[in-house]
Amino acid sequence: MEILETAAALQALTEKWRREGRSIGLVPTMGALHEGHLQLVRTAAAQNDEVVVSIFVNPTQFNNSEDFKLYPRVPDSDAEMLRGTGCTVLFTPTVEEVYPRPTVLQFNFGALENVMEGAHRPGHFNGVATVVSKLFHLGRPHRAYFGQKDWQQVAVVRQLVQDLSFDLDLISCPTIRETDGLAMSSRNRRLSPEARAVAPRLYEALQLAAAQLQHTRQPELAQQAALDFLGAYPQIEVEYLQVADARLLQPLPAGTEPGQEAVICLAAWLGGVRLIDNVVLLLT
Amino acid sequence: MEILETAAALQALTEKWRREGRSIGLVPTMGALHEGHLQLVRTAAAQNDEVVVSIFVNPTQFNNSEDFKLYPRVPDSDAEMLRGTGCTVLFTPTVEEVYPRPTVLQFNFGALENVMEGAHRPGHFNGVATVVSKLFHLGRPHRAYFGQKDWQQVAVVRQLVQDLSFDLDLISCPTIRETDGLAMSSRNRRLSPEARAVAPRLYEALQLAAAQLQHTRQPELAQQAALDFLGAYPQIEVEYLQVADARLLQPLPAGTEPGQEAVICLAAWLGGVRLIDNVVLLLT
Repeated sequence: MEILETAAALQALTEKWRREGRSIGLVPTMGALHEGHLQLVRTAAAQNDEVVVSIFVNPTQFNNSEDFKLYPRVPDSDAEMLRGTGCTVLFTPTVEEVYPRPTVLQFNFGALENVMEGAHRPGHFNGVATVVSKLFHLGRPHRAYFGQKDWQQVAVVRQLVQDLSFDLDLISCPTIRETDGLAMSSRNRRLSPEARAVAPRLYEALQLAAAQLQHTRQPELAQQAALDFLGAYPQIEVEYLQVADARLLQPLPAGTEPGQEAVICLAAWLGGVRLIDNVVLLLT
Repeated sequence: MEILETAAALQALTEKWRREGRSIGLVPTMGALHEGHLQLVRTAAAQNDEVVVSIFVNPTQFNNSEDFKLYPRVPDSDAEMLRGTGCTVLFTPTVEEVYPRPTVLQFNFGALENVMEGAHRPGHFNGVATVVSKLFHLGRPHRAYFGQKDWQQVAVVRQLVQDLSFDLDLISCPTIRETDGLAMSSRNRRLSPEARAVAPRLYEALQLAAAQLQHTRQPELAQQAALDFLGAYPQIEVEYLQVADARLLQPLPAGTEPGQEAVICLAAWLGGVRLIDNVVLLLT
């Protein structure tokens, strides 16, 4: 596994690979790797000749400077974890390398980002789309891998790829969970023992909402059931809990028909740490 | 010269060229080719192994549906003109081929598009940035060629390339003029004989403003001199005439220092046809 730190070095290498006809998988991450990331890397390694993993805590997607400052950074153990996973190149640029000058252009994804993460984190998806575009142009992937824990991010990147005709396949992979159900996340490292103990309730609430939705087809009842459940845990402060169309991300209307794919997404604070999770279900 | 009509065919060919290590130049046009376009193509041919010329009247960059409808389309004579210029592939997609689905994402270039063309043609540069991004991803150019007649467009595309780290060189080429000074433009074909006779006054007005600016360093005086001059021609209706910083495109303040690069841009209507032109000068 080679470690590259400059955009020019990565571009030169991926250009060479393209010229040699080698297929390239890209796994963009912000580091503090966990098993969820490693699964993306293993999937990429199974489907491509070369795998680029980028580790870059992207300042432009943080609407909260404290969150950016506290985001975990553990480069040495990240590099260690990647050995043996099939990662060919680890790309760890500085902020100056990715943003030699401040950017001017702003992306807007309309309805897709007027809800949930987009609504609660102004500018977040502009930062995501900007850095993802840059990484696509540096890494020249045939396939790019994203985790479904960030469901809305996957939807936004899918729209980006489609609207700008990026020549690559976007591959989204299932959320990986701890044995107690907590979705793996780099931010989990920041949870206090007390917060960590209660964190699995988030996924339980989502499962409860999913069962309720499947049973009643009433999004509001599903939402309320989950909120009531979480209300019993004062350590959890829900930022949003939304039942939505899985593709369009818009709130599902009452009495939705079978065949509809729904996603239930939440964001919640636990002792100063913001976690997100979701479940997807097909109404039957 | 090969003619390709599908995105997939162009992508396959440019992928093959990249694999073979052949350099690619792209000249995006909306057709109704003139000598200005042909100069871009010849420049591209001198600097690259392969040259892709795209002809696509891009609906998303027209804020005026009448202008879109009336935009000249002469595919056969365009193809004829390209023979012998060094164009390797002529790409002539349909609207459905470029936009299989309506796009969702919107670009905003902030101050760069809050003036001149951006201010007078809402959504224009979003459409330009969208189609240029698509053509870059289909054509995979090492170098892309644009004419300086569309000065603001060049500035916007330069920002796009920089902000999204497109791996290509943007090459802007001088405006080509008729012997009487009129900037070559596809829209010139739509001028009535009377409008065509008076059209060279636009460039004269710009030259007058440039001389005045060089002499007085007073942008307002320069602007007024040009407007006074054009006021004598009732067939010409000026939409804007702006003295600006050549890079930032913002209005130049009075008393600008030597060393400043300025651009004087105008848009004007002549008998239902909208023309633009500009001159660039270095204050000495």
